[in-house]
Amino acid sequence: MGSVLLSDLATEIIIPVCAVIGIIFSLIQWALVSKVKLTPDRNGSPAHNKNGFNDSLIEEEEGVNEHNVVAKCAEIQNAISEGSTSFLVTMYQYVGIFMVVFAILIFVFLGSVEGFSTKSKHCTYDVHRMCKPAIATALFSTISFLLGAITSVLSGFLGMKIATYANARTTLEARKGVGKAFITAFRSGAVMGFLLAANGLLVLYITINLFKLYYGDDWEGLFEAITGYGLGGSSMALFGRVGGGIYTKAADVGADLVGKVERNIPEDDPRNPAVIADNVGDNVGDIAGMGSDLFGSYAESSCAALVVASISSFGINHEFTAMCYPLLVSSVGILVCLITTLFATDFFEIKAVKDIEPALKNQLIISTVLMTVGVAIVSWIALPSSFTIFNFGVQKVVHNWQLFLCVCVGLWAGLIIGFVTEYYTSNAYKPVQDVADSCRTGAATNVIFGLALGYKSVIIPIFAIAIGIFVSFSFAAMYGIAVAALGMLSTIATGLAIDAYGPISDNAGGIAEMAGMSHRIRERTDALDAAGNTTAAIGKGFAIGSAALVSLALFGAFVSRAGIEVVDVLTPKVFIGLIVGAMLPYWFSAMTMKSVGSAALKMVEEVRRQFNTIPGLMEGTAKPDYATCVKISTDASIKEMIPPGALVMLTPLIVGTFFGVETLSGVLAGSLVSGVQVAISASNTGGAWDNAKKYIEAGASEHARTLGPKGSDPHKAAVIGDTIGDPLKDTSGPSLNILIKLMAVESLVFAPFFAAHGGLLFKLL
Amino acid sequence: MGSVLLSDLATEIIIPVCAVIGIIFSLIQWALVSKVKLTPDRNGSPAHNKNGFNDSLIEEEEGVNEHNVVAKCAEIQNAISEGSTSFLVTMYQYVGIFMVVFAILIFVFLGSVEGFSTKSKHCTYDVHRMCKPAIATALFSTISFLLGAITSVLSGFLGMKIATYANARTTLEARKGVGKAFITAFRSGAVMGFLLAANGLLVLYITINLFKLYYGDDWEGLFEAITGYGLGGSSMALFGRVGGGIYTKAADVGADLVGKVERNIPEDDPRNPAVIADNVGDNVGDIAGMGSDLFGSYAESSCAALVVASISSFGINHEFTAMCYPLLVSSVGILVCLITTLFATDFFEIKAVKDIEPALKNQLIISTVLMTVGVAIVSWIALPSSFTIFNFGVQKVVHNWQLFLCVCVGLWAGLIIGFVTEYYTSNAYKPVQDVADSCRTGAATNVIFGLALGYKSVIIPIFAIAIGIFVSFSFAAMYGIAVAALGMLSTIATGLAIDAYGPISDNAGGIAEMAGMSHRIRERTDALDAAGNTTAAIGKGFAIGSAALVSLALFGAFVSRAGIEVVDVLTPKVFIGLIVGAMLPYWFSAMTMKSVGSAALKMVEEVRRQFNTIPGLMEGTAKPDYATCVKISTDASIKEMIPPGALVMLTPLIVGTFFGVETLSGVLAGSLVSGVQVAISASNTGGAWDNAKKYIEAGASEHARTLGPKGSDPHKAAVIGDTIGDPLKDTSGPSLNILIKLMAVESLVFAPFFAAHGGLLFKLL
Repeated sequence: MGSVLLSDLATEIIIPVCAVIGIIFSLIQWALVSKVKLTPDRNGSPAHNKNGFNDSLIEEEEGVNEHNVVAKCAEIQNAISEGSTSFLVTMYQYVGIFMVVFAILIFVFLGSVEGFSTKSKHCTYDVHRMCKPAIATALFSTISFLLGAITSVLSGFLGMKIATYANARTTLEARKGVGKAFITAFRSGAVMGFLLAANGLLVLYITINLFKLYYGDDWEGLFEAITGYGLGGSSMALFGRVGGGIYTKAADVGADLVGKVERNIPEDDPRNPAVIADNVGDNVGDIAGMGSDLFGSYAESSCAALVVASISSFGINHEFTAMCYPLLVSSVGILVCLITTLFATDFFEIKAVKDIEPALKNQLIISTVLMTVGVAIVSWIALPSSFTIFNFGVQKVVHNWQLFLCVCVGLWAGLIIGFVTEYYTSNAYKPVQDVADSCRTGAATNVIFGLALGYKSVIIPIFAIAIGIFVSFSFAAMYGIAVAALGMLSTIATGLAIDAYGPISDNAGGIAEMAGMSHRIRERTDALDAAGNTTAAIGKGFAIGSAALVSLALFGAFVSRAGIEVVDVLTPKVFIGLIVGAMLPYWFSAMTMKSVGSAALKMVEEVRRQFNTIPGLMEGTAKPDYATCVKISTDASIKEMIPPGALVMLTPLIVGTFFGVETLSGVLAGSLVSGVQVAISASNTGGAWDNAKKYIEAGASEHARTLGPKGSDPHKAAVIGDTIGDPLKDTSGPSLNILIKLMAVESLVFAPFFAAHGGLLFKLL
Repeated sequence: MGSVLLSDLATEIIIPVCAVIGIIFSLIQWALVSKVKLTPDRNGSPAHNKNGFNDSLIEEEEGVNEHNVVAKCAEIQNAISEGSTSFLVTMYQYVGIFMVVFAILIFVFLGSVEGFSTKSKHCTYDVHRMCKPAIATALFSTISFLLGAITSVLSGFLGMKIATYANARTTLEARKGVGKAFITAFRSGAVMGFLLAANGLLVLYITINLFKLYYGDDWEGLFEAITGYGLGGSSMALFGRVGGGIYTKAADVGADLVGKVERNIPEDDPRNPAVIADNVGDNVGDIAGMGSDLFGSYAESSCAALVVASISSFGINHEFTAMCYPLLVSSVGILVCLITTLFATDFFEIKAVKDIEPALKNQLIISTVLMTVGVAIVSWIALPSSFTIFNFGVQKVVHNWQLFLCVCVGLWAGLIIGFVTEYYTSNAYKPVQDVADSCRTGAATNVIFGLALGYKSVIIPIFAIAIGIFVSFSFAAMYGIAVAALGMLSTIATGLAIDAYGPISDNAGGIAEMAGMSHRIRERTDALDAAGNTTAAIGKGFAIGSAALVSLALFGAFVSRAGIEVVDVLTPKVFIGLIVGAMLPYWFSAMTMKSVGSAALKMVEEVRRQFNTIPGLMEGTAKPDYATCVKISTDASIKEMIPPGALVMLTPLIVGTFFGVETLSGVLAGSLVSGVQVAISASNTGGAWDNAKKYIEAGASEHARTLGPKGSDPHKAAVIGDTIGDPLKDTSGPSLNILIKLMAVESLVFAPFFAAHGGLLFKLL
């Protein structure tokens, strides 16, 4: 064991400072985005502001009235923003009730472990020391649960706000060129990324320090209570992802089925009654939902690392700096991402469509390389040269370079997953082109090839995750897994920036279409959007990869806390858990896909009704009734998010209470290993179909032109694939991350209760 | 411990007698089927033979020349039979080479365990006794491997022969009514079912008795060597399922895409150049492949039970009758199925289309109820009242009634799986009707609903399997699981009969169409076929359910034999195995689906080419070139079956050799729990799509008529779903059973080698 270079005081300063830097940076980005004016004021018009350029705008060249276009964009943006805000507020109200109920449940369940006794008890892992009573853990777990939930809501809500603020601005900037539009969209994504990363860190840091006022030296209890933060974050994320996912895809599928397939009008055509709902959906699903999701992952991996550390030598010896290693890694991550962002926005310029994907790819590479250096520094200054980590009952000696490797293996596994996802979902490569090609023989072969592509895309990510797990597990047991997950998420700000940029561009395209802007604008936003589909898939790849690691770390922490030493597949209790757990992702997907399908059917009926009954709608002389479509999506998603939400939230409680911790361990392991595959394949299949369609539409190569143009038979087949992919890639796929994480973190939080009172059914038999 | 009522001599007699009864019964059924004459000889014509009825035939009523029709049917049947035989012979030649190589591999690997020493060694489980040398196990494992392979080939081949013998006869009988056609098809299925069940039992029984001549009292070695029988059976089944599956679906998808979608000609229209290949495919894929598959399950569960019993008190005390318990259960199963069959063919008569599904469902119920009695009797007379079963290092005391319950739980779980599958795939119930209804809004919603249906259909079967595992595992450890699997398979003759009847009816419909028979004939065969889709799905449900139990039993036997005591998920070696194992079904499915897709594309091109270049083809004045299409399917399936085959066969060898038995345990558990879900959902999704299409085509209800008729937009959407479902339900889905079983049995056979020399990579590190 050695001393640590970084003093505790320095640690206490560095973490909040980095968080604040992140927040300031995101505010600066916001300010830069806001320089694109949405008020049609000549003096403040985009062409003349300080950020602007003196190139004449396309609209001006083409003689379109600029005043009108800007006003129209502002109006549409307003509608989208209002729709999104109103949906999220409605959803949060419902979820709020659930949160309160669940908070009470946490308090009661955890309080009952020691019969609500307020007496101090012997610590679990260090029996010579006295720890705070179980009721304190119950209370503080409840508080941190609520804090996590609120932070998650905030992350999603702020993300949505900036996205709906940026979409029309991106449209307007697209008039100046693809590079300007890209920067606006990307900066807005960065606002979200940095706000989320910094907020998550700051709230967690403050919470720890406040809790310490009560807990004092009882770090075991302190960090047990902190796990509620992860649970809160993820349970909000669940509803965000599922509710938002159903919302967005019901609208999208409904709009496409009538608009594109039946009426043969373009995507986002203002005559389509579901168009506003569709654009709202991008913001509440892909932006707010994803923000909550990644915040959840981040909070959980931090909690998992902290809870394991608290019963390792860091916690036992009260080494504060070493204890804060996970937070320090995240802090450095913010700085690294800050530099990385400058590469995209300031150091280089996007001049053509073909530069977009490489620029985004470079973001991944740069952040990973820089972060490797950052992690090395943190590992060097914040860790003793050797220490011990709790490993299912025994303390395992670990060196600081081993922990460095654990973080790195997660970080680089993330990069590999990102690249593989890009390869399988970008239309620059053969897999998507093959899928596009299969559209020649119709929708059926398109679907067969797309499904096969998704299945195949699972292989390398799984090997990357497996290697990551093996290395980090071998070096530092469950703590290694947790920091590997943190490593993968350490560049979360950049990840979110490139991820959020996709839906913003998608919206920008929608606004351009609705505002009746030139075809060239739409082409530019489409190019941004095509790259956005790939980055969205990459983001989902990261989300699921990190979710796998996080869940495993949480699972390990749960097992430690529940006092199990072995999870033996060859016992019936565990095996039935394993096979039922592996089934849960299917059950969950069945629910969410069916929900999207049913809601889409309702949407189709409504859209058809409007087209049939509103005279002049197809001719563009009458306005459709957007509000009814928004209401259909809202009602459907609020109603339909409850069953899958209940499945995920109740499963650990029911299994733990009635079948006990061994079966629950099996369920967690089963849902983890099965859910990862379903999630990755669903996301990539959907992404590939979307881009196969875009490949045909763009007609950028000789091959693509033989399949097109829009409206050709292969294109129609591609549209069908795209529509099928919608719920896969944006509803069921990404929600599965949360399923596996949330069940694990919930088990961890309730572990003392299950260990004390669980397994009722087997006790009765 | 008590004595056994049944003497060893009686056991020695009962088993072969039951097997011979099964064979005789199947020959009688064959004789009954053969009474339907295919030679257009007036004296022997169907209307006048002894089995015949005096109702006048439809053809006669409608004035079609009977002579010509019969001759035409005979000609088509001949073409199908020749095509099927030639494909199977070609495939077996290739697979034969593989088998020889693999046999050598088995001998070398197993022989090397003790360095090819020919000296006797101490037994593994009873160290006071001397056992035969490892080289003997190597030699006899190789022999039983080859015997298993040959029996599997025989099962598949004979099944194909009777199916291609029966198809045209079913067509001809359909002229007399749906009941007559049903009985012909069902009897033919029964021929296959009984031949397979009886053959499998007889060969196994004879092999055991012959091996005993050498092994004498060394039952441990004897039954270790017998496991090769299961491996042989399953590895042939793998190639049969994959090769046959690619063949049939390449032809089917190719034929449908051009014929139904582009040219708007009916299914099985003789003008379609792929039509013969399509009909051949049903026989080589759905019949021969499935026969080999179920034989493999049967052989493996018997082997798993025997190998565990050999190291339990039965084996240690040399209680022959108790040792033969699994074989006795199967023997009684043959008798039970015999009685059950009579209910369908003789006791009741099918008078209308609506009677078909209940009749088949009754088969399931009757066989299960009767078998329960049968198992009770066998358990009572063949087992001591209590005995011990080897359970990972310890001997567990088990009572005979517990073992009875183990078999029953498998048997009844099978029935539940059958019912659930029926519910989700038959168009008599809401799920398929909902899928059909979703076709209103196009192919995309059809696919979304279909996928969701498949996912949902997994839930109850998994609970049934889990409960089955829990009960049988708790009562009698891995032996319990093995006999539960046997219980599920004990009614295999009936299961196969109702399963094989589907493709036979499908073919019968094809022949009716090609022979230009009346529309009414086609309607009847279509009705049979719709029920056949459901029974096929039920058959697949059984196959996958039993595969899950079998694999677990084999897995347990492997673990015992490899000397592992615990498979702890919380060790990195096991966990990475688990997650990679869970990925394998996806990898495998990606390969098989892509293969079908690519082969179908080639088929489409060829069919289009023929339509475009052969003058008079569409008008029916010129004959298409069937042979080229047959060749495309043959070449594609032979070529494409190698990579997935290699994946399955090599994975255990590579993992065991380089990563060792713990990781291999993880891989087996992972692929089992994940593969089951993928397989069930794929089979049911495909079955549901097929029947949703048939629902619209049949137009039997008010609701169905609003979706039809053939050629309407909803029907077109349904056809797309059906086409997508083809590779899911007939190629990748059913092949996955074999993936999980085969990897387990292969691991079991090679366990001594892995235990002695495995884990090279970790040894190096």
